[in-house]
Amino acid sequence: MSRPVKGFRFSGVHAGIKPDDRLDLGLLVADEPAVAAGVFTRNRVRAAPVVVSERRLRAGRCQAILVNSGNANACTGKEGQESAVALTRATASALGTAAKLVVPASTGVIGVQLPRKAIEAAIPSLVSGLSPRGASLFSRAIMTTDRSPKIAETKVGVGRTSCRVLGIAKGAGMIHPNMATTLAFVTTDAAIGQRTLQRFLGQATEQTFNRATVDGDTSTNDSIYALASGSATARRIDARDAAAKRFGAALEEVLESLAKMIVADGEGAEHLVRIDVEGARTHTDAVQIARTVACSQLVKTAIHGCDPNWGRILAAAGRSGARLNPDHVSVRIGKVEIFREGRPTMTAKYEAEATATMGRNEYVISIRVGKGRGIGHYWTCDLGHEYVRINADYRT
Amino acid sequence: MSRPVKGFRFSGVHAGIKPDDRLDLGLLVADEPAVAAGVFTRNRVRAAPVVVSERRLRAGRCQAILVNSGNANACTGKEGQESAVALTRATASALGTAAKLVVPASTGVIGVQLPRKAIEAAIPSLVSGLSPRGASLFSRAIMTTDRSPKIAETKVGVGRTSCRVLGIAKGAGMIHPNMATTLAFVTTDAAIGQRTLQRFLGQATEQTFNRATVDGDTSTNDSIYALASGSATARRIDARDAAAKRFGAALEEVLESLAKMIVADGEGAEHLVRIDVEGARTHTDAVQIARTVACSQLVKTAIHGCDPNWGRILAAAGRSGARLNPDHVSVRIGKVEIFREGRPTMTAKYEAEATATMGRNEYVISIRVGKGRGIGHYWTCDLGHEYVRINADYRT
Repeated sequence: MSRPVKGFRFSGVHAGIKPDDRLDLGLLVADEPAVAAGVFTRNRVRAAPVVVSERRLRAGRCQAILVNSGNANACTGKEGQESAVALTRATASALGTAAKLVVPASTGVIGVQLPRKAIEAAIPSLVSGLSPRGASLFSRAIMTTDRSPKIAETKVGVGRTSCRVLGIAKGAGMIHPNMATTLAFVTTDAAIGQRTLQRFLGQATEQTFNRATVDGDTSTNDSIYALASGSATARRIDARDAAAKRFGAALEEVLESLAKMIVADGEGAEHLVRIDVEGARTHTDAVQIARTVACSQLVKTAIHGCDPNWGRILAAAGRSGARLNPDHVSVRIGKVEIFREGRPTMTAKYEAEATATMGRNEYVISIRVGKGRGIGHYWTCDLGHEYVRINADYRT
Repeated sequence: MSRPVKGFRFSGVHAGIKPDDRLDLGLLVADEPAVAAGVFTRNRVRAAPVVVSERRLRAGRCQAILVNSGNANACTGKEGQESAVALTRATASALGTAAKLVVPASTGVIGVQLPRKAIEAAIPSLVSGLSPRGASLFSRAIMTTDRSPKIAETKVGVGRTSCRVLGIAKGAGMIHPNMATTLAFVTTDAAIGQRTLQRFLGQATEQTFNRATVDGDTSTNDSIYALASGSATARRIDARDAAAKRFGAALEEVLESLAKMIVADGEGAEHLVRIDVEGARTHTDAVQIARTVACSQLVKTAIHGCDPNWGRILAAAGRSGARLNPDHVSVRIGKVEIFREGRPTMTAKYEAEATATMGRNEYVISIRVGKGRGIGHYWTCDLGHEYVRINADYRT
């Protein structure tokens, strides 16, 4: 990380939730109560920390987020709710702030009560370890099956000041062998109103995390938090400012990077693929087509096999529910057109080029479905033996 | 097969569509034009034979179905349409009937023109091979990646006569490495009106083929045909008869058997699982929950690993879009309750029992989601290495 985001400190310790000695408890603290926004899972089965966070964030202010990995605190009933509340209270007390300004987040096995005492015992060292340069520790403390920590940052000019936007996430598969969840934490030292922040966070999530799939599953714990300290500048971003537009773009850039890291880290994934759809009747239609192609098991296995199988892409597009005329559909793998206006254009040369493109770590499949103005995209990854190995061969 | 369905003959030959010497061309003929009904793929990308069949069946009469495997005649443009029409014309001429009474069906690779001359050359031997006992040959001629032919039959009493219902299908994965499709052909010697037959076929399809998933993909060629000769009895089934109800049940029984065979034959599948949902607000909600669970990659890999992973089942149910309160959800694997009213009930003993149940070839996962009256089910199979091997490792 180039330099810290002003007004925030981070920490991470091993509290004993995970069986080995990996970090499993993280804390993110704002020096002063920060403007806060959140986006939470749409799954009707919601973990205790999601319920508590959503309720507390309604006030629009937050000073600290306590995150544990190794246990999702989901399907844990009343006791799980009480644990979530008690742990934020203990954290608030150690920080000298109000419990309502502290929110919980959890990720890991479902249906098991949190080891509350072990976590409480770790809070003092967690708090004493807080540092403006602690983001790396924090990013490791929230990992479950992630192959690597996920951090993305950018800056945005507000007046003469350069403000920073820092995002930290975890996730590798929407829900894992009982290891649930995508979590993301955005901190910024820009000054911004709560409504504006919430709106930008919602829009950016829609364009990034909600356009990414590993296995089509939504977890019980998915949460994205954004906290703005306002420490970098006294000038508050107004919704009608040019700076507001830049801030929204910066937020989206950070979340896009994190979402791509999560899909690329998809369980066993070797290829990160963007499905681009254009020419649909509406944007909604375009996204629906992109989503159906991105989630198709047959497309995902073809991606794994580096097989430019336009038949599967076309069949998925056709069953998406969006209106399309196959005679107007064209498909490109990278720059190679393999299907034009309803007919395959594959020659041995084209096929070799398309196959070569599909050998890359990252590439684009473009689908033109007509002359409409609707565009949309989705990020996906391949489905291979490693996914099956992780999700079937290993018992929970 | 116990005894033939009166009024029908079947045949199957090798025409040279498949590269090896397997059967690849089948013919089903009614002695007289039969009452006919059809249900076709909802995919917007529709193969030429689907378009032709649907158009011709509108008249409600059909005398013959010409089916080829090895080539789907999909994404083949105007030439593909012309081939489909020309081949039914050649068949009609060999049979001495009108072309409009002959419909085509195809399954196999997409985007390749039918070898029209080879098929035309095979029609005489196909016609001369017709026999009331030819259903077995026909059932093999329509196979693509099926591990075995799929035939199911039952009888239904109409007045004092016992009428027969015979179903023949192919399919193993909704769409294969360019080998598309589920096809099913039902023949009966009952006498029934076209509207009644179409209505029963639609209802039975909804409860059977539309409640079965291998990989969630719908092919460009999926078609189900039903032909009634009326040869067994002069007494026509009236929609208001008790016999009508029995006939509808018989049709559903046959399609249910075929749908189960297809899911059990799902590419590489080792377990056939029925997802039963009860207590939902509406039937639609129940089916939606069952479908989401049945299509979840994470549930399907857990089924492969014989892992009683209620967390994945619950998370899938929660994201289905149907209303549910997790505190009212209970889950059983076979007879073992592993989750009751929002909380896991797993003990080592229960887990061992649940795991043992999951070792079976066929079992039921029951999900009670509340006290509502909505019920619904879905058939699914496991997702394992063999699926990935078939769909990713083998190039098309």
